[in-house]
Amino acid sequence: MGGFEARDERFRERVRESFARQPFINFIGGELGRVEAGAVDIALPFNASLAQQHGYVHGGVITAIADAAAGYAALTLAPVGSGVLTTELKVNFLRPAGEGRLEARGRVLKPGRTLRVVQSDVFEIVQALERHVLTGLVTMMFMEGLND
Amino acid sequence: MGGFEARDERFRERVRESFARQPFINFIGGELGRVEAGAVDIALPFNASLAQQHGYVHGGVITAIADAAAGYAALTLAPVGSGVLTTELKVNFLRPAGEGRLEARGRVLKPGRTLRVVQSDVFEIVQALERHVLTGLVTMMFMEGLND
Amino acid sequence: MGGFEARDERFRERVRESFARQPFINFIGGELGRVEAGAVDIALPFNASLAQQHGYVHGGVITAIADAAAGYAALTLAPVGSGVLTTELKVNFLRPAGEGRLEARGRVLKPGRTLRVVQSDVFEIVQALERHVLTGLVTMMFMEGLND
Amino acid sequence: MGGFEARDERFRERVRESFARQPFINFIGGELGRVEAGAVDIALPFNASLAQQHGYVHGGVITAIADAAAGYAALTLAPVGSGVLTTELKVNFLRPAGEGRLEARGRVLKPGRTLRVVQSDVFEIVQALERHVLTGLVTMMFMEGLND
Repeated sequence: MGGFEARDERFRERVRESFARQPFINFIGGELGRVEAGAVDIALPFNASLAQQHGYVHGGVITAIADAAAGYAALTLAPVGSGVLTTELKVNFLRPAGEGRLEARGRVLKPGRTLRVVQSDVFEIVQALERHVLTGLVTMMFMEGLND
Repeated sequence: MGGFEARDERFRERVRESFARQPFINFIGGELGRVEAGAVDIALPFNASLAQQHGYVHGGVITAIADAAAGYAALTLAPVGSGVLTTELKVNFLRPAGEGRLEARGRVLKPGRTLRVVQSDVFEIVQALERHVLTGLVTMMFMEGLND
Repeated sequence: MGGFEARDERFRERVRESFARQPFINFIGGELGRVEAGAVDIALPFNASLAQQHGYVHGGVITAIADAAAGYAALTLAPVGSGVLTTELKVNFLRPAGEGRLEARGRVLKPGRTLRVVQSDVFEIVQALERHVLTGLVTMMFMEGLND
Repeated sequence: MGGFEARDERFRERVRESFARQPFINFIGGELGRVEAGAVDIALPFNASLAQQHGYVHGGVITAIADAAAGYAALTLAPVGSGVLTTELKVNFLRPAGEGRLEARGRVLKPGRTLRVVQSDVFEIVQALERHVLTGLVTMMFMEGLND
């Protein structure tokens, strides 16, 4: 986790451009944070539309930002001309997420040629206190010719 | 899968009432379909806001309706006075989902007291043809006192 | 699930030969059963060495035969000259497995070029009654040049 | 991960006693290492019986020690009179494991009352070099009256 070298020196611009034209994560209000080789953070302010029936943030929303952070973390390491697709993901919900700001952190674990395994964790931040709400593992596949 | 008996004879009303006050799945346009003991379907018409950067439906959206169908399938079997929470989920993406109508089908597999294992599959329906886009396993936990 | 066409007409021999020189599954007493294009069954008679501390079959053993059945199910569809490796797996334990005969059934779900998603279920068979003990999803990767 | 307080001050003896009467992990040659509140390590020397058809350690074996380390990590935090059962697990294989010594490290992530989420990683150690071969997430359930 760390020590990765990007194969496309424009990886930061590439992630920012792709994020800017990403409808769903923008629709729910996601904000791109840190972008390093192998590591991307995405924040999400609370919004009542994103809740489930008990008022907590819907698990699908938390999973979506975990997936997006994982995908962009993988994209920082993609060769020029390749995009990424999620092939599978697994998440454990550690605590319900209330009205704090969420932050998803994707960190590439595996330096594969075709597949990248990414750990993704989501924290709820309430007055500078971090609560761990989700931990997950995501497999991303590089796809040549996919315009990311 | 099948042969389940509901412990609350009002389970259909309960699912419909809970779905009606579920912000996120309504926000993205989800529609409640079939509701049987141990089985719930949720449909989702295509909408460009739900796409990821390549124009396919975002994996987080597909996962969200898979999770919701699983949760409501579990809720059909909950005792009176208990709600459900997702403890973990795992999904495999079988094909990208385009502009067809999606249908998520949650089917309870395991008759546990505390935990319910639910299989959840999502299909894209294009001109009466079903394409399998996601298969997943979801663990739901019954929580006494949770108002579902 | 079904309707698959093998790309190597010798797929049955190939699975049987690979199984015969598979140390671990033979070490624990696994027996190869049904072999069809996209579907392989592996049986495992009970043996006290395979138990965990409460006397049930160890979850790692049940997972191992689920993984093996999934791998051989994928191998039935591999091109000549390619082998398979598990890239990830996820299992839910539905019931503890006692002293009955276990049967793992791997069924390919996804017709991918590089990856195969396989559903794998394990049943304990006690006097002709089947009890579902594990359900899982396994991703297998074809590897050219891997001698299976 | 860390900062956990055991509810049974005899947790170390309990883990050692349970491990000593654990047939399967002993059958394959597992060795109990570090035992702390919330953290257990299990080592496994290479043995040709544990291989799959390409000579690597079988994925089921690696998963079994990951599961066992997770289970014992959870057991360190169990109340007196409760045992643990695995409810589900998910693993990603990062690299094939050759003939080095394996070490599985289970670390409890979530301080739940009924469920414990445990991260489990397996490393192959070759001449003091650690190679990460598996990362996984395991959910363990406390069961009152289960004699661990």
